[in-house]
Amino acid sequence: MITVVIIGFGNVGSHLYRVFEATPDIEILQVYARSIPMEIIDAKKVTTNIKDIVDHADVYIAAVPDDTINAVTSQLDFTNKLVVHTSGSASLKSGSDTNRRGVFYPLQTFSKNKEINFKEIPICVEAENEEDLSLLINIGRHISEKVHVINSIERAKIHVAAVFVNNFVNELYHISEDILKEQQLDFSLLTPLIKETAQKIEQLTPALAQTGPAKRGDKKTMLRHQGLLTQQQQEVYHLLTKSIQKRNISQDE
Amino acid sequence: MITVVIIGFGNVGSHLYRVFEATPDIEILQVYARSIPMEIIDAKKVTTNIKDIVDHADVYIAAVPDDTINAVTSQLDFTNKLVVHTSGSASLKSGSDTNRRGVFYPLQTFSKNKEINFKEIPICVEAENEEDLSLLINIGRHISEKVHVINSIERAKIHVAAVFVNNFVNELYHISEDILKEQQLDFSLLTPLIKETAQKIEQLTPALAQTGPAKRGDKKTMLRHQGLLTQQQQEVYHLLTKSIQKRNISQDE
Repeated sequence: MITVVIIGFGNVGSHLYRVFEATPDIEILQVYARSIPMEIIDAKKVTTNIKDIVDHADVYIAAVPDDTINAVTSQLDFTNKLVVHTSGSASLKSGSDTNRRGVFYPLQTFSKNKEINFKEIPICVEAENEEDLSLLINIGRHISEKVHVINSIERAKIHVAAVFVNNFVNELYHISEDILKEQQLDFSLLTPLIKETAQKIEQLTPALAQTGPAKRGDKKTMLRHQGLLTQQQQEVYHLLTKSIQKRNISQDE
Repeated sequence: MITVVIIGFGNVGSHLYRVFEATPDIEILQVYARSIPMEIIDAKKVTTNIKDIVDHADVYIAAVPDDTINAVTSQLDFTNKLVVHTSGSASLKSGSDTNRRGVFYPLQTFSKNKEINFKEIPICVEAENEEDLSLLINIGRHISEKVHVINSIERAKIHVAAVFVNNFVNELYHISEDILKEQQLDFSLLTPLIKETAQKIEQLTPALAQTGPAKRGDKKTMLRHQGLLTQQQQEVYHLLTKSIQKRNISQDE
């Protein structure tokens, strides 16, 4: 049995709580949160005072905002325990050095009311020593089929890449919704295309999956498109078109 | 039985051929292509001479590049037949006016070697008269559960919105692949996140689905991200971050 304390009950903390609760070999000893979360039935498991966190867990998982990792972990009332954070962009050294540090980063987008299948989520782990790393790999494998040992530099790159395929992609969805709204058209019209675009990438590289006017160099269509957009939408259109077309040039050379 | 001639055997034409071949109530009389496609077993069905296209089909579907729609349909050796194009961005009036004009636009991304389930694809139809429109709706319903009567102005908006959620999203995938490559990391690491990002949008609006540093106004992380990118990647990062943040401001007001 591996014993765990979860520090923080935001999007990541609450999802980790749910998956660990459903994992026989992992026991959640305690959850630290600012208030007692509704979904934790056993209220004794929750503490709202960081000084009351027990000192005998195998690992402490601080699922807190990046810029509070140091402040939160510095308040822990014990030393030389394994305390990990869950951030994609904070380095291994972000936490307080009074404990052994590590990272347990689930590479996924979490929203409170959207269920997640952890089995498919890549878990990126890192630790200051081999024994801690083994424990994190072990925990990772209990919840996911994809556990990767990733150092802080690699993880930072993964995190920024994730911003492109998640936050920025979602912003493109948002712009499309805006465009359709002007004609009272429903965004759900685009759902099949959105799904196919994402699925295609499992079989084809982004280079092979690309189609459309920018790729074809179809200037007439691009000109017509620009005429349908607001100035702000045009800026995005222009920049991403340029980005696609630069690839064409380097391919042709 | 509805009889059809397919003009052009590119990505759209070949997929329409496959789905019509599998539809009992639709008969493909003929395919016009520049050369005889490997996958058409009955070679007599194919003509490479546009003047040899039979004149007794119920509908002629010109699945050809936008800027050739007029040139191709002008060469047809008959008049007053229903001749439709499959373009998202070309107007109803693009085809030659020697025949009755219409549009049969499947809103999806097609690649030759990627199978497609037509049932879920929105088919946008438009025609110059009611009877032709009914026929196009009828054909659409044979292959898809989602047939929409869409005029040329609406379709143009849909098409440019589709460029955002498909071509531009794919370009963001490509940029992410570039970022990961610098650390010899495999793009498949991001596949679960890409899938979840697309799936989320079926349940949540883009506004509710958004997360990340731009949405949170987390300047430290954004600064760190910029430091990891090439100048060109930074431009995209900056513009899409600005686009997300403008929405925050208008929400707060």
